[in-house]
Amino acid sequence: MSITVVGSLAFDAVKTPFGERERMLGGAATHFALAASFFDTVRVVGPVGDDFGPAELEVLGTRGTDVADVEHVSGGRTFFWRGEYGWDLNSRETLATELGVFEHFEPELSAASRECDVLFLANIQPQLQLHVLEQVSSPRFVALDSMNLWIDIARDDLLEVISRVDCLILNDAELRQLTGKPSLVGAARQVLGLGPSVVVAKQGEYGAALVTAEGFFALPAYPLEQVIDPTGAGDTFAGGFVGHIARQLEHATSDRVLRQAMAYGTALASYNVEEFGTERVHRLGFEEVQARVAELQHMTHFESDVAVASP
Amino acid sequence: MSITVVGSLAFDAVKTPFGERERMLGGAATHFALAASFFDTVRVVGPVGDDFGPAELEVLGTRGTDVADVEHVSGGRTFFWRGEYGWDLNSRETLATELGVFEHFEPELSAASRECDVLFLANIQPQLQLHVLEQVSSPRFVALDSMNLWIDIARDDLLEVISRVDCLILNDAELRQLTGKPSLVGAARQVLGLGPSVVVAKQGEYGAALVTAEGFFALPAYPLEQVIDPTGAGDTFAGGFVGHIARQLEHATSDRVLRQAMAYGTALASYNVEEFGTERVHRLGFEEVQARVAELQHMTHFESDVAVASP
Repeated sequence: MSITVVGSLAFDAVKTPFGERERMLGGAATHFALAASFFDTVRVVGPVGDDFGPAELEVLGTRGTDVADVEHVSGGRTFFWRGEYGWDLNSRETLATELGVFEHFEPELSAASRECDVLFLANIQPQLQLHVLEQVSSPRFVALDSMNLWIDIARDDLLEVISRVDCLILNDAELRQLTGKPSLVGAARQVLGLGPSVVVAKQGEYGAALVTAEGFFALPAYPLEQVIDPTGAGDTFAGGFVGHIARQLEHATSDRVLRQAMAYGTALASYNVEEFGTERVHRLGFEEVQARVAELQHMTHFESDVAVASP
Repeated sequence: MSITVVGSLAFDAVKTPFGERERMLGGAATHFALAASFFDTVRVVGPVGDDFGPAELEVLGTRGTDVADVEHVSGGRTFFWRGEYGWDLNSRETLATELGVFEHFEPELSAASRECDVLFLANIQPQLQLHVLEQVSSPRFVALDSMNLWIDIARDDLLEVISRVDCLILNDAELRQLTGKPSLVGAARQVLGLGPSVVVAKQGEYGAALVTAEGFFALPAYPLEQVIDPTGAGDTFAGGFVGHIARQLEHATSDRVLRQAMAYGTALASYNVEEFGTERVHRLGFEEVQARVAELQHMTHFESDVAVASP
């Protein structure tokens, strides 16, 4: 089994009420890989510039992640993002985006990356996501992330990619924007009609919801006394979610496995936001992840005093 | 056992993307009473004007609610609110507020209302809430709601009321505003240090969270394909939450009962928003409430694949 992720590798400059980092390793593929590497072999596909050195590659390679498909563009600079968060960390402002080597990125997968069992298309231009889909041979589970920008300017391409994947993972506001449906359930059901069998709505500090033909599941975020830096939380969630599915691939789309996957994604995201960038998940242990999965189960459990409806 | 609620009785003019009502029965005490009346005898304390007639009193008296302490102010007009909701119903604008008889309201409880076992202080001026607390003899559970206005202009009085109640029910943004803590957990823990043993954070479409010394519990909102009118959802939630506690009073602050109470509040609130104002909850049956409690249990359940931490 193996997981291929295609997406950004980046340097982030981040300021939150609790501190700042002028230049830290980031990017969707980075955060995804650090989380998914707990579950399976991960292969990362994405471009970097001359400023991406051995230290960054070493972090990216945590827990055996394969970096052979990280494309070094000579003379180029790595994607750079600068942002600042508001006092409760629920709002953020992008202060600078420098595409660098990402501007002319055309993903080319090696033979090993093409033969993945599970594919995660992190948030990049939908045309490039389609280009990746044409290269992979026969993945058994494909999940997709996107963003408001592509819903605005590349809607048709995005709908085309969506029609070809098993799972769409979006922020709830983006799901509403995509479908024009004001209710999350309505929006998710519409997406289920477009092709995917699984829709995950990321809800930031409120957690995440899962909608399938079988029904609805929601899990709160793991409650933290202090969040230091939310950057990468969504991709870390995706790494835990997709990672757990990869290791349970024979039951990948059973409700049981999908719900557990939500818990692994939630647990991993909660560690991600405890420190800046990749700092916490880089040195995380799997037993710590499992402890929060168990805690989440306790935090969401209640004994009904009425007869339980059969599922 | 009986529950006394002190708060507003009102007429609301509401416009949502799905329709409008020019003048419908509303008010915090109304919505609370309609929900709590499933669980126990409710006594409503609040002022109304000449425009509040037998039809309104009949709805308020649903399921045996006692309206003897509804104070008719001769020559006065009932509290009136006009508001309009945005397309996804998450934002609303207040277009008019006419205090009417509420302007000079001083709650005076009858002997029966004073002897309540459970008291809900709906959102009114903290000075008046204190005035009510001085009248009740020995309630076994007191819950309190408030709002951003009182945090701004009557902070000391509000802190004084908070110190005397068992349970604070607030929107999560208001909990942050009250405590100056950016994280919900941090804010709730600070409130636990002020006197209450139970803090409920209402999170709108995302549900609600419960924080006690024993720990954290969160429940998503019941997912609806279409929300028609969110007015009164918070007070309906409070009615279900406090109502269930009232009928389990011997175990009122056990985690088991509090978590079940969260489910009853959530189920009742979900019915409230399906139609305008009191329309849906007025004709609701208890078996419908129980069905959603059971569904909520199913929607939040996952089987951990790791050993479960003891609570």
